[in-house]
Amino acid sequence: MNEAAKTLDGWYCLHDFRSIDWSSWKRLSSDERYEAIEEFLSLMEKWNHTEANNEGSHGLYSIVGQKADFMIMLLRPTMEELNEIETAFNKTKLAEYTIPTYSYVSVVELSNYMGAGANPDADPQIQARLKPILPKWNHVCFYPMDKRRQGDDNWYSLGMDERRAMMRSHGMIGRSYAGKVKQIIGGSIGFDDWEWGVTLFSNDVLQFKKLVYEMRFDEVSARYGEFGSFHVGNILPKEKVKQFLHV
Amino acid sequence: MNEAAKTLDGWYCLHDFRSIDWSSWKRLSSDERYEAIEEFLSLMEKWNHTEANNEGSHGLYSIVGQKADFMIMLLRPTMEELNEIETAFNKTKLAEYTIPTYSYVSVVELSNYMGAGANPDADPQIQARLKPILPKWNHVCFYPMDKRRQGDDNWYSLGMDERRAMMRSHGMIGRSYAGKVKQIIGGSIGFDDWEWGVTLFSNDVLQFKKLVYEMRFDEVSARYGEFGSFHVGNILPKEKVKQFLHV
Amino acid sequence: MNEAAKTLDGWYCLHDFRSIDWSSWKRLSSDERYEAIEEFLSLMEKWNHTEANNEGSHGLYSIVGQKADFMIMLLRPTMEELNEIETAFNKTKLAEYTIPTYSYVSVVELSNYMGAGANPDADPQIQARLKPILPKWNHVCFYPMDKRRQGDDNWYSLGMDERRAMMRSHGMIGRSYAGKVKQIIGGSIGFDDWEWGVTLFSNDVLQFKKLVYEMRFDEVSARYGEFGSFHVGNILPKEKVKQFLHV
Amino acid sequence: MNEAAKTLDGWYCLHDFRSIDWSSWKRLSSDERYEAIEEFLSLMEKWNHTEANNEGSHGLYSIVGQKADFMIMLLRPTMEELNEIETAFNKTKLAEYTIPTYSYVSVVELSNYMGAGANPDADPQIQARLKPILPKWNHVCFYPMDKRRQGDDNWYSLGMDERRAMMRSHGMIGRSYAGKVKQIIGGSIGFDDWEWGVTLFSNDVLQFKKLVYEMRFDEVSARYGEFGSFHVGNILPKEKVKQFLHV
Amino acid sequence: MNEAAKTLDGWYCLHDFRSIDWSSWKRLSSDERYEAIEEFLSLMEKWNHTEANNEGSHGLYSIVGQKADFMIMLLRPTMEELNEIETAFNKTKLAEYTIPTYSYVSVVELSNYMGAGANPDADPQIQARLKPILPKWNHVCFYPMDKRRQGDDNWYSLGMDERRAMMRSHGMIGRSYAGKVKQIIGGSIGFDDWEWGVTLFSNDVLQFKKLVYEMRFDEVSARYGEFGSFHVGNILPKEKVKQFLHV
Repeated sequence: MNEAAKTLDGWYCLHDFRSIDWSSWKRLSSDERYEAIEEFLSLMEKWNHTEANNEGSHGLYSIVGQKADFMIMLLRPTMEELNEIETAFNKTKLAEYTIPTYSYVSVVELSNYMGAGANPDADPQIQARLKPILPKWNHVCFYPMDKRRQGDDNWYSLGMDERRAMMRSHGMIGRSYAGKVKQIIGGSIGFDDWEWGVTLFSNDVLQFKKLVYEMRFDEVSARYGEFGSFHVGNILPKEKVKQFLHV
Repeated sequence: MNEAAKTLDGWYCLHDFRSIDWSSWKRLSSDERYEAIEEFLSLMEKWNHTEANNEGSHGLYSIVGQKADFMIMLLRPTMEELNEIETAFNKTKLAEYTIPTYSYVSVVELSNYMGAGANPDADPQIQARLKPILPKWNHVCFYPMDKRRQGDDNWYSLGMDERRAMMRSHGMIGRSYAGKVKQIIGGSIGFDDWEWGVTLFSNDVLQFKKLVYEMRFDEVSARYGEFGSFHVGNILPKEKVKQFLHV
Repeated sequence: MNEAAKTLDGWYCLHDFRSIDWSSWKRLSSDERYEAIEEFLSLMEKWNHTEANNEGSHGLYSIVGQKADFMIMLLRPTMEELNEIETAFNKTKLAEYTIPTYSYVSVVELSNYMGAGANPDADPQIQARLKPILPKWNHVCFYPMDKRRQGDDNWYSLGMDERRAMMRSHGMIGRSYAGKVKQIIGGSIGFDDWEWGVTLFSNDVLQFKKLVYEMRFDEVSARYGEFGSFHVGNILPKEKVKQFLHV
Repeated sequence: MNEAAKTLDGWYCLHDFRSIDWSSWKRLSSDERYEAIEEFLSLMEKWNHTEANNEGSHGLYSIVGQKADFMIMLLRPTMEELNEIETAFNKTKLAEYTIPTYSYVSVVELSNYMGAGANPDADPQIQARLKPILPKWNHVCFYPMDKRRQGDDNWYSLGMDERRAMMRSHGMIGRSYAGKVKQIIGGSIGFDDWEWGVTLFSNDVLQFKKLVYEMRFDEVSARYGEFGSFHVGNILPKEKVKQFLHV
Repeated sequence: MNEAAKTLDGWYCLHDFRSIDWSSWKRLSSDERYEAIEEFLSLMEKWNHTEANNEGSHGLYSIVGQKADFMIMLLRPTMEELNEIETAFNKTKLAEYTIPTYSYVSVVELSNYMGAGANPDADPQIQARLKPILPKWNHVCFYPMDKRRQGDDNWYSLGMDERRAMMRSHGMIGRSYAGKVKQIIGGSIGFDDWEWGVTLFSNDVLQFKKLVYEMRFDEVSARYGEFGSFHVGNILPKEKVKQFLHV
């Protein structure tokens, strides 16, 4: 057996994509819509409080195309909290006018390919990456991925050194986008259908394409990357929620 | 022809995943919801009775993400009993407010790769593993899997010795998680779409990821494992059912 | 071109899987449900008459898990008759409360790999296998399958002798289950999405798993078998239909 | 680059598969159903007129199994006409009680593998094959297909001579079914999801299976054929439409 | 790592495919339908204004077959504008009577395989291709595609020179259709599920088939092309919208 990669694991993460049932939403009275929006905003207010206390984080994004109308990204210290928040949202008035389209369950992960320090628990930089406050940048991109296990292209049959060398080269592309793209890796083996969920943030949406395209020529993606569905969106700040839902 | 693995087979098993139609559920009067919950709890009471008599077992879990809201795992001595309980549940009031999202049919299985003793029918340890009372641990993980038959990676073309050696190494990883993760293997060839359904239990949800990730580097998974959809959830004890369904 | 296998073909066969819309069914008055059941039972009575005259056969099974609630298996001498019966069922009251979930169209087939006698049309044993009255055994298993055509594993590029040798070995496993499992092969090339539909019958549901698992180690399955979705169920005799549909 | 095959192209073709929503259909008054059927029959009357003028053709078939209840096959000189007829049908009363289940867009095609004469535009036989009046035979079979491009089995990397030789052998099997099976090939590269749509007609439904099975052993299918979903059905002549829709 | 291709990127692009719920649409009063159509036409009027100012472009097409009834293609300088227009459309009355069937998010892209000039930002021809006003031609064809990464056929493992040579040969086929087919390439890595979305325009719908078929024999498609679903349609000019929606 090959040496398995070790990981550091942080907050649990739920990506929750929803479409809006605009027809039903429009059939509500404006009072009812007002109430539904207020209820949702007060739920978000609680989440803001949690984030201010550094006990979790979240983001709200409108999604481009028919795959979804919006996405809520949630980070919390336990799987139970994710589950509770998800259920609480499902019980809101607004949720009645949404259609679940896709979700993803993971845990923020750093792998030892990158070489964490001797005592990661005490390293504030590592801790900040494991328990990240989401950047309030303009755009988001989410996609799940696997490492390929197919004929001669079997990532899990490679030795640790070979994997580490490839991941390092991969990481260097990522680093060349520093300041332009932030990335959060969610490990999801045992939690969801792909091995990882990748979330990218940028103020320039074109950087997502540049980064992912450049990486695709890198051996680790070219030979070993399998990619799921991509979602791209724009940040939906609290003050624009009413306008977004206005009909 | 290669020597086929022999199996010991125990209780039949149904995993039944459901989403809740929260909108319709909310439209019920609280009296109607009360009745529906009571009816479901009394059904569970019967199942508890069965479990107390060692004539079967069951578990109830809330599921994280949009794949389902809850999952019922049922173990019974016959396929007819599974079918009857499933139909009985389908006829309840609560079931009207659920949407079936996924199910899995299998039978608890031990393979002779591991080498059972001379008289498994009389071995209480073996019997306890074939007719297991589900642990009341905090978390559950379910996924179906196949052994690959693809080009040079064809599990079913390997000799018995080679398969046994690989399964032993695989089992040793499992054993290193003893006390942290319990595992029930359901054989489902001839019963459902994958060859096995794996259910993991743990009090620490992160152990699911650690175990499955570590195993993936093992040859038997790296070269021969094909994995279906993963569901992860939290135990939903009887006393929390009312709160879970409260709107 | 390789020599194509010749087949003997018997009755046409439709597998019709349905889920029950229990919510709507419950909203009917018990008089309406009574009528719907009576209408269905009288349709079955006609089919029984056909079977008694050896002009076709049928079976009714409840299905375990969410894939379906019941399955009707129909055998008739012509494709038109299958189509008429299907349409007649679709027009019944009961059908309004069912949701089609899967179906399969085939014709009972014997291949010349096995070597039929000189005059199969006059051989009563062959004729009984081509126009089979379904056994009233407790359990049913259905799955469709293909022979693989992939890289070096291409069944249709093998010579007749090689194919015959493998099919013979395969058939010997089947024969070792004589008395425990009966099998009907439906050829479906040109009729449905897979090349064959396999229906197994047994009084011991575990025999399905044993048989299919043992066969999987045989070269013809290990290298050349591609399998679709499996459905497993329990016989639903006429006298239990009312109880099954009672709400 | 390999020499591309040249094609002769005739009428555009739409296969339109529909299920009937029998429950809603039954809820109509018999007057409303009568009107809906009359409207549909008068639409078909127009199509008959077009066919009598040799300006197009069409067929109506009931489909066996749950994939659809009926299929309309339409041939017209332009894509616009197909689109108009499709939209006109969608606006009928009957269409409100149907559920679209599958469709296919193609153009009748003859390839130069077969060697057309010097001046195909003036060859009445070629023209009759490019602008075919559909035979009023009892059964229809439709399936889409691709030529494989996979590893060593890449049709589009073969030289013209090799492709032509294989297509010729393939055509000879087809010709041996002359009088028993008629075939219309629709080219659909650039129009729909597969490269071709094949429609077979026969008075003996078993011939579909015999033909497609025999061809599967031919190298061009064995190594290079990829097949989509198969639909099989029975002709539904105008005089049986009322009975078919009678509830 | 191989040298990644560089791209020039222009306007963002949304393809939005919809089916019409004809039954519900017909249940509206003709006044309500009139209003819904007028609202949609006035939205299109705004888009025309944008196009006249060279600040974006759009097209409206009816789609042949069941995949959709119409498609809106939208080009705008930012992802936010696409998202706003999509949401604005979703809030219209007409949208209530449509069912989203497929969408695609991309950005108009030119790759450096073709060798852009020294200063593309100042080159009006390049700019016109990056920010294209859609041709008002009769037909449209859309399909997404990937470059294959599979065993020995791995596009992203090829050197730049090899890729450039193949793309050049590919481009020459395209150029031989100049005047007959116009093509817009949307890069969608990081934005949607395939790597590119290809839109073709022609006054002769048969040219789509000829072009795509001819290209398939070219090495870059034969060995490296993976194709998604194809949609084909006819232009729906503003003056025909009322007729198209008339019931």
